[in-house]
Amino acid sequence: MPDLTRSAALSIAVLMAASCGGAMEDQAPAPAHPPATQGGKASGPSGPQQLASPIAQGSDEGMWLLNDFPAERVASRYGFKPTQAWLDKVRLASVRLALGCSGSIVSPNGLVMTNHHCAAECVQQLSSAKRDFMQTGFYAKTEKDEVKCPGMEVNQLVEITDVTARVNDATKGLADKAFADATKAETSRIEKACATGDEVRCDVVSLYQGGRYHLYKYRRFQDVRLVFAPELSIAFFGGDPDNFMFPRYTLDASFVRIYEKDKPIKLDTYFEWSKAGVREGDLTFVSGHPGSTSRGLTIAELAFKRDIGLPNTLMRLSELRGVLTEFGAKGKEQKRVSGDTLLTVENSLKALKGEREALVDPAFFASKVDAERALRARVEADPSLRGMAGAWDAIAKAQKEFQKIYPAYTMIEKRAGFGSDLMHHAFTLVRAADELKKPNEQRLPEYGDSKLPAIKAQLFSTAPIHDEFEILILGTTLTKLREVLGPDHPFVKKVLGSRAPKELAAQLVQGTKLKDPKARKALFEGGKAALDASKDPLILFARAVDPEARAVRREYEERVEGVVKSNSELIAKAKFVAYGTSVYPDATFTLRLSYGSVKGWSEAGQPVNPLTKIRGVFDRATGKEPFALPKSWVDARPKLDLDTPFNFCSTNDIIGGNSGSPVVDKDARIVGLIFDGNIHSLGGEFGFDPASNRAVAVHSSALVHALEKVYGASRVLAELKR
Amino acid sequence: MPDLTRSAALSIAVLMAASCGGAMEDQAPAPAHPPATQGGKASGPSGPQQLASPIAQGSDEGMWLLNDFPAERVASRYGFKPTQAWLDKVRLASVRLALGCSGSIVSPNGLVMTNHHCAAECVQQLSSAKRDFMQTGFYAKTEKDEVKCPGMEVNQLVEITDVTARVNDATKGLADKAFADATKAETSRIEKACATGDEVRCDVVSLYQGGRYHLYKYRRFQDVRLVFAPELSIAFFGGDPDNFMFPRYTLDASFVRIYEKDKPIKLDTYFEWSKAGVREGDLTFVSGHPGSTSRGLTIAELAFKRDIGLPNTLMRLSELRGVLTEFGAKGKEQKRVSGDTLLTVENSLKALKGEREALVDPAFFASKVDAERALRARVEADPSLRGMAGAWDAIAKAQKEFQKIYPAYTMIEKRAGFGSDLMHHAFTLVRAADELKKPNEQRLPEYGDSKLPAIKAQLFSTAPIHDEFEILILGTTLTKLREVLGPDHPFVKKVLGSRAPKELAAQLVQGTKLKDPKARKALFEGGKAALDASKDPLILFARAVDPEARAVRREYEERVEGVVKSNSELIAKAKFVAYGTSVYPDATFTLRLSYGSVKGWSEAGQPVNPLTKIRGVFDRATGKEPFALPKSWVDARPKLDLDTPFNFCSTNDIIGGNSGSPVVDKDARIVGLIFDGNIHSLGGEFGFDPASNRAVAVHSSALVHALEKVYGASRVLAELKR
Repeated sequence: MPDLTRSAALSIAVLMAASCGGAMEDQAPAPAHPPATQGGKASGPSGPQQLASPIAQGSDEGMWLLNDFPAERVASRYGFKPTQAWLDKVRLASVRLALGCSGSIVSPNGLVMTNHHCAAECVQQLSSAKRDFMQTGFYAKTEKDEVKCPGMEVNQLVEITDVTARVNDATKGLADKAFADATKAETSRIEKACATGDEVRCDVVSLYQGGRYHLYKYRRFQDVRLVFAPELSIAFFGGDPDNFMFPRYTLDASFVRIYEKDKPIKLDTYFEWSKAGVREGDLTFVSGHPGSTSRGLTIAELAFKRDIGLPNTLMRLSELRGVLTEFGAKGKEQKRVSGDTLLTVENSLKALKGEREALVDPAFFASKVDAERALRARVEADPSLRGMAGAWDAIAKAQKEFQKIYPAYTMIEKRAGFGSDLMHHAFTLVRAADELKKPNEQRLPEYGDSKLPAIKAQLFSTAPIHDEFEILILGTTLTKLREVLGPDHPFVKKVLGSRAPKELAAQLVQGTKLKDPKARKALFEGGKAALDASKDPLILFARAVDPEARAVRREYEERVEGVVKSNSELIAKAKFVAYGTSVYPDATFTLRLSYGSVKGWSEAGQPVNPLTKIRGVFDRATGKEPFALPKSWVDARPKLDLDTPFNFCSTNDIIGGNSGSPVVDKDARIVGLIFDGNIHSLGGEFGFDPASNRAVAVHSSALVHALEKVYGASRVLAELKR
Repeated sequence: MPDLTRSAALSIAVLMAASCGGAMEDQAPAPAHPPATQGGKASGPSGPQQLASPIAQGSDEGMWLLNDFPAERVASRYGFKPTQAWLDKVRLASVRLALGCSGSIVSPNGLVMTNHHCAAECVQQLSSAKRDFMQTGFYAKTEKDEVKCPGMEVNQLVEITDVTARVNDATKGLADKAFADATKAETSRIEKACATGDEVRCDVVSLYQGGRYHLYKYRRFQDVRLVFAPELSIAFFGGDPDNFMFPRYTLDASFVRIYEKDKPIKLDTYFEWSKAGVREGDLTFVSGHPGSTSRGLTIAELAFKRDIGLPNTLMRLSELRGVLTEFGAKGKEQKRVSGDTLLTVENSLKALKGEREALVDPAFFASKVDAERALRARVEADPSLRGMAGAWDAIAKAQKEFQKIYPAYTMIEKRAGFGSDLMHHAFTLVRAADELKKPNEQRLPEYGDSKLPAIKAQLFSTAPIHDEFEILILGTTLTKLREVLGPDHPFVKKVLGSRAPKELAAQLVQGTKLKDPKARKALFEGGKAALDASKDPLILFARAVDPEARAVRREYEERVEGVVKSNSELIAKAKFVAYGTSVYPDATFTLRLSYGSVKGWSEAGQPVNPLTKIRGVFDRATGKEPFALPKSWVDARPKLDLDTPFNFCSTNDIIGGNSGSPVVDKDARIVGLIFDGNIHSLGGEFGFDPASNRAVAVHSSALVHALEKVYGASRVLAELKR
């Protein structure tokens, strides 16, 4: 499941933040002077000393910017050259699900196709002990039956502007923390000026580790309603064992609809449907939002991930998996309430395991070391670049500093020690009260004006909150806080006093009024005064904890983030000089376009066929979870054409966040729906291996065949332009 | 808790085998020609090219053999030179608890002192839903009240014989698998000839990675009865958070008694009790059974542990910890039944985390790399040693092979995929039926005649078996089997068929008769015929699985073990040439003597006082687990001298397996009871850091003070010779 944090159950997003988010923070916005304008001798993109592009000959590697797409390269490789109009259409028909997925507009009435696992949080939130849509599936027979997804936000990218020069001007002559602060302030100013209302979302995106800054302007949709979702047992057929594997037999699809003023929206640009779908060898494009990659990190940063970040996160997630598995075994309702979180944890676990394995592969790591050595040698040999030579060592030193504050930073500020949705709400309310008093550009960036609509959507969400589950997660994470920092840490003593972690969790969850979205709204809108007057135990708790959280964040920003940002910018410059623009930036959960083709690979010497058939799912079914088919499929079997293609794999370069991305052909028609990568794609975090890295998608023919024969979902089918 | 596998709940021992046991296998018996007799030029122990001893000047490093103790070194460092008589007494008064701990004889009536956590499995097995001795503690007021511990075996080392020449003769001219097989066969022959009855235990121990073979002859005691155990809440005060930490306030002590012919045994040699105990700076000896260290491993082997073995084991244990934590939260009885296993898992987790952290410390790993480089350079420069130069690369190649078969080997043959006590019994019965038909020297070594008493003790143990808990562990590990090997692995398909792992676990556990020790005895004594006739579902299952387990074991032995053994022997030879006998062999769960002194260290620039007082436990108590004192202590407080020393730390070099070791002074009197090491001791697996590695013990004064004032254990006190 290559989404960012799956559908990002808050508590779990927080738990994962420690590795994923933390790592992303390392490479967050760093200002840069546009390298192409640097006039050093032989430093132009085609200078004689330029290094070979790090992208292998004949590889489909690349998560390309829509405004810097290598159309010529595709033309020479596949005989088709996308035009600007083609690219614009693809951009406008692609959407982002703000909590961590991708999707596509597939009808003029705002119908959006994405994965089941991208809508699963919504499906679970709309369920109750009596009606479990995860188990039964969901289909709105009429428009009236479409139900709003609490907290789901869809973004459509309407404009990209290069603001590199503006950011650079604001940071000229500054270094480290001052430099990082100025970047944040200027970024906030640009975003605020752009975001003229709640219906506009603006993000300044740092590309190439700070080599470029682009302003992404989105149309923001916050009324999104569930239209169709199949049963989990077919949407995630094979469960965790089959996750990130291929061959595969899964209908990981769902449809939601964008509403505006309580009506389905009307949109001119959308993807039509391919009649035939793809066959082996066909050219494929994937347009979606890869969340984060670490291909441009230095060796010191990769080593930190390999030795500290990933192992610690993996152990924490493994333990949580055990806790959730046993909690779910308590009873049907516990299983229902915790099921989606368990899927999220297992998905992350498998993905991060794969990342760690890539980094401990000696040959792979050596190739990274070699590449860095080559670039450093290039820098040291070029008098115009010699000022950048210290950048790698500076970043390495910052990693050592990071290691020292890593436990406190992840546990306290990144909240791995404070799981649970309620706790997250409390922290948001406490910080918002302090931050919103300040001018926009002085706030913590996540409380900038341009971020408020998303904050409100989460805070005011009507998604149900389950006490027993909240206590479980909060108790488990508070126990971890004590374990990681130690029972004698002054902060731990302050937090726990003489209370056991689970006891404290129960007191807080049972005592708080924040379960009611109205109570949260009142506190948010009441501002600092309302918050200071609140006697809610969870608010009091979050207020008591916040100063230490801010302190460790400041420490992180000064000793780690600031240093990494300014030095990453230097390395980014050197890379532009060495490679020109023949490379793409690391993923940033913004729209990218990948090209490739339907193609298998060789596993242990055996060829893997790139397409599976519907027949295969019946062969694989055992009747027992996670290989049990839903009744609808068992009943429909006689009506199905078992030779219909079901899933396929292709050479497109994708990663977590791409879940729900459309696969389109050269006519920009839907031929598939990305939902996974194969096991070799997990190393894609650090580099693309053209021999074995494959994206995995549901075939367009299977989608319509199932909608028709299994689900009789005629309303959905009628909208698709086939 | 520095024991080997704590008290080794079977299922968990199996789970940990994958890293600990597997790793131990790597360095298991490897034959060697006695290096001192090799006459190469300048290769004698005092040759001019000899390298400096790898033991730092002024360090107390070393787990020394009792028959090769550096008495002179102690004399020059501490002014006391142990005599042979002194060493013999210490050897005879020290005992080994066969399942993974150490202990000491402290009275002429066979009273044995060890840790609470070493007797905890017994304490739990003697408990029931109505009487939970883990919670209430146990004290036999009269001899009649002493109760037999199921499966506890105590060994007293009566004789050590060097059999190196004999093993070398048997393997002369052989290589790899043939070489390993011949070693095993000769070892079996030696052990069988030595073990003249069930009351004698004989083990040939491979020392210095195969540089020496010594035959250890033990007196074996299998009737061991529980005398005294305090409440878990004081025996493990501070729980997992305080484990491997210091300062510390814990009474991790228990007493058992050796019986012979249903009477307490009479023994001439035992430790007397020190009147004053130790103060800062005092000389201390620790005599015990360190389980396993990896200080002599090559870089390739260490890298395998760092990148593959430890991370995978840590993830598996983390998940199991989560499962057990939540299982225990189901109810009081579930907590009671699973509690000891959870302690075992948490202890291993913390210990192995520390090991991993040591290996990812760049400075530490670099020191290992440097040491290997120096030795290799020495070998390459010496014509008489040049034949050994390929040994390191051969071992590195074997590690790559190991990586390939690691998943199947650990899951199937090391049984990480088949947890649960019942499953362990079933496998033992199946293998025993096949192995015992063969001549002794052709059997798998663990079924040699000399091993039968221990096998029977485990197999016929009356320890209760809890269905719900068995299903939990078996279901969890079968799920892991499917996850690690994948659902399409032919072995997994054969094992599971169309059944879900938990379903299969329930069927097997509910259907088997092996819960009854009489049924296990009948099957064992009935031999192959009885086994083949058995329709017990668990026996049928184990029989079906065994061929694949044997196959992957053979593969491991041929491609990994054999190569590592023969090449480790070459390196061992080179080391003898380079360092002479100035070094001690890696730990092998056999008796070792360590010297040191009571000494603190500096933590983050602050000095740590090496002694704590009883007062401290009252200051630290919060009333909430794991910082809740038992009622007995709260009630006794007015009677206690709060300035009595409670725990202390010393520079003795210990590791897992040393739990329960006596700390004695130069008069061989008890001054303490080892129960832990500090956090810096965890890296001791790979090397000893004299600056911060500390052993942690209960002070002898606290022991007698608590026995008298808290427990009124006058029977025990009266026996101690004070």
